[in-house]
Amino acid sequence: MTARESFGDLRPPARVLLGPGPSDVDPRVLRAMATPVIGHLDPEFLRVMDETRELLRAAFRTENRLTVAMSGTGSAGMETTLVNFLEPGDKAVVCVNGVFGQRMADIVERTGAEPVVVSAPYGRIIDPADVKKALAQAGGPVKLVALVHLETSTGVWQPVEDIAALAKEHGALFVLDTVTSLGGVPVEVDRWGVDAAYSGTQKCLSAPPGLSPVTVSDRARQVLHARARKVQSWYLDLSMIEQYWGDDRAYHHTAPISMIYALREALRIAHEEGWENRFARHRRVGRALQAGLQAMGLELLAQEGFRAPMLTTVGVPEGVDEAAVRRYLLSRYGIEIAGGLGDFRGRAWRIGTMGHSARPRNVTLVLAALAEALRVQGRRVSAEAALEAAADVLAEVPAGGG
Amino acid sequence: MTARESFGDLRPPARVLLGPGPSDVDPRVLRAMATPVIGHLDPEFLRVMDETRELLRAAFRTENRLTVAMSGTGSAGMETTLVNFLEPGDKAVVCVNGVFGQRMADIVERTGAEPVVVSAPYGRIIDPADVKKALAQAGGPVKLVALVHLETSTGVWQPVEDIAALAKEHGALFVLDTVTSLGGVPVEVDRWGVDAAYSGTQKCLSAPPGLSPVTVSDRARQVLHARARKVQSWYLDLSMIEQYWGDDRAYHHTAPISMIYALREALRIAHEEGWENRFARHRRVGRALQAGLQAMGLELLAQEGFRAPMLTTVGVPEGVDEAAVRRYLLSRYGIEIAGGLGDFRGRAWRIGTMGHSARPRNVTLVLAALAEALRVQGRRVSAEAALEAAADVLAEVPAGGG
Repeated sequence: MTARESFGDLRPPARVLLGPGPSDVDPRVLRAMATPVIGHLDPEFLRVMDETRELLRAAFRTENRLTVAMSGTGSAGMETTLVNFLEPGDKAVVCVNGVFGQRMADIVERTGAEPVVVSAPYGRIIDPADVKKALAQAGGPVKLVALVHLETSTGVWQPVEDIAALAKEHGALFVLDTVTSLGGVPVEVDRWGVDAAYSGTQKCLSAPPGLSPVTVSDRARQVLHARARKVQSWYLDLSMIEQYWGDDRAYHHTAPISMIYALREALRIAHEEGWENRFARHRRVGRALQAGLQAMGLELLAQEGFRAPMLTTVGVPEGVDEAAVRRYLLSRYGIEIAGGLGDFRGRAWRIGTMGHSARPRNVTLVLAALAEALRVQGRRVSAEAALEAAADVLAEVPAGGG
Repeated sequence: MTARESFGDLRPPARVLLGPGPSDVDPRVLRAMATPVIGHLDPEFLRVMDETRELLRAAFRTENRLTVAMSGTGSAGMETTLVNFLEPGDKAVVCVNGVFGQRMADIVERTGAEPVVVSAPYGRIIDPADVKKALAQAGGPVKLVALVHLETSTGVWQPVEDIAALAKEHGALFVLDTVTSLGGVPVEVDRWGVDAAYSGTQKCLSAPPGLSPVTVSDRARQVLHARARKVQSWYLDLSMIEQYWGDDRAYHHTAPISMIYALREALRIAHEEGWENRFARHRRVGRALQAGLQAMGLELLAQEGFRAPMLTTVGVPEGVDEAAVRRYLLSRYGIEIAGGLGDFRGRAWRIGTMGHSARPRNVTLVLAALAEALRVQGRRVSAEAALEAAADVLAEVPAGGG
């Protein structure tokens, strides 16, 4: 009530976003955001939705009719893919090897269903044998199996197919978190037999945060339509949302128009680049960063062979102030990297090379800046070795745009 | 999967948004949306959040510590103010005189609480005597009373204070929907004793849709913290969200950065205009439109004396094709107005004069265009009389900007 007289212009500092998202946003996407708003039932806007859905299907590699952008961030997508299928008393196998698997288990509990947790330590993948055991010992039918494709808290890149097959064998729906993976590594919804997948916009798609792409198989839709009771969330109820995104165009809630504009443009950019080219770019940039960090003598915390290219977790050396290093990078260079979450809190940095941020110049910059920040902390590492190791890999990335 | 080769530039047509929201967005807000994205935990972004909260408190006229923008549209705000306080078995008195009151009752049911519905016909206000009766006959303690300030489906402007006082007398929390009212007519959260209010950004605040301002009293926070079980929605759980918006700055989900930029700018514009001036502008513009429509011989459907200035429901004359008139306005002039919802479906138009759309030129334009559309439908009305009646009222609106 006692607001000051006047507020200044919005002038956020220039950043280089190398955290776990948001990633840097392409100026074309920013321009799309500034496009005048039209109505959520305007025929021209419905066309924009249709195109966005077509692009989302290409991103998810699916023919799923029910493919939408939920009007909330990735966590809203997570909640969507759980609350629409679970009812009180159901059992759900939830794979937990980081913060986001844990979040899934938390949401499952809030539905009144029983989470059967299959866990692995931070930095390790989930072992399909453990999922098999959990399914066998669940003591009753399992309604769904939930897995994180790329754990944003650990940088672990989980193989999906074996666990998807196990879910199918047991007649369970298979739910996959692709928040960090979509647009950065292949996501094969139809081929893998994923029944519900969700993602975010601010990771490898490089749109601003605010929407959650969600796709649902016809098998999962049947489970939704056969529910005994209403979905506990009105806002996330897919049985109503599919009527707005579908042919009925029935009003549910007012779609976030500008965010849809942004998502469409971000997907269009990915489509123009070519999804395979985009994956290759993420792979090389990530590998370069990881080679540089190791050459610097730092430890990578994700299990070898399962390291995500777009999110690298690196151990904080003994005696180094984790937060001070981040503050140094931010204040000196405007570079954002993140600290650890959950079991990795205080012990790790998370460096993201996602979407528009996945480019050679950012690798070179962050390696040089990190070496400097460590030196300031009294820890001398070889910037030289790091930059050379990275440059060798970066030589494989097509030049230009840097 | 079979996306076409290429997608064209985003080129939505130029519209004049005179529906029930979204309203036209000020170019300053569009520009704010195009501001580069920074991280959701960046100290500079936290400052933007603090300023946004300060402005939201001024808008809601409250000192409530827990004042935030939820990362979803107005309906997410509605769900937030219900699911955070209700537990299975609770009773909630819900006032229903339109679609949005009905939606509240639906959400209450989904929490496992029991809605005690107090209803009034579409177009009429809720009678406080009916609320009093419901509270007395509820057969047990009532956890909350929920009311819509301005029913977007009917254009009815509900007096709040008597019902707020009744809730307080009965020890119930008082929840108020201010989706359409905030920024257009006075909303006095602290003075009226509102325990939880929610709004939208795309109505009288004239930001794009996508966020829901929410404010919660300390009394309601105590109810939240005393819950026996977790809030059923993880995404909308205020006990976690207050830690991100509060001093802890604990990560919950990634805030929709660009939408917060937009909301801050929209609130700043309102703050510069002055809230009282803004209310006066809405009042005069709405009164002019209503005078014009009546002079045209059309019927206003909201109860006299309780007509919202920013949303006018008008009866479709016998024999006129409701949808054809809307299509005419849209295709001929790019003017968006809306049809009726719920009981008013097919029987009403809804014309919004909200925020940036609440300006003299839009009144004159829509009256002239509507008279023309009716003429095309074979229904001759006097544009002359309508325009004169409106002009008399519009003469009171400060000139300029039109």
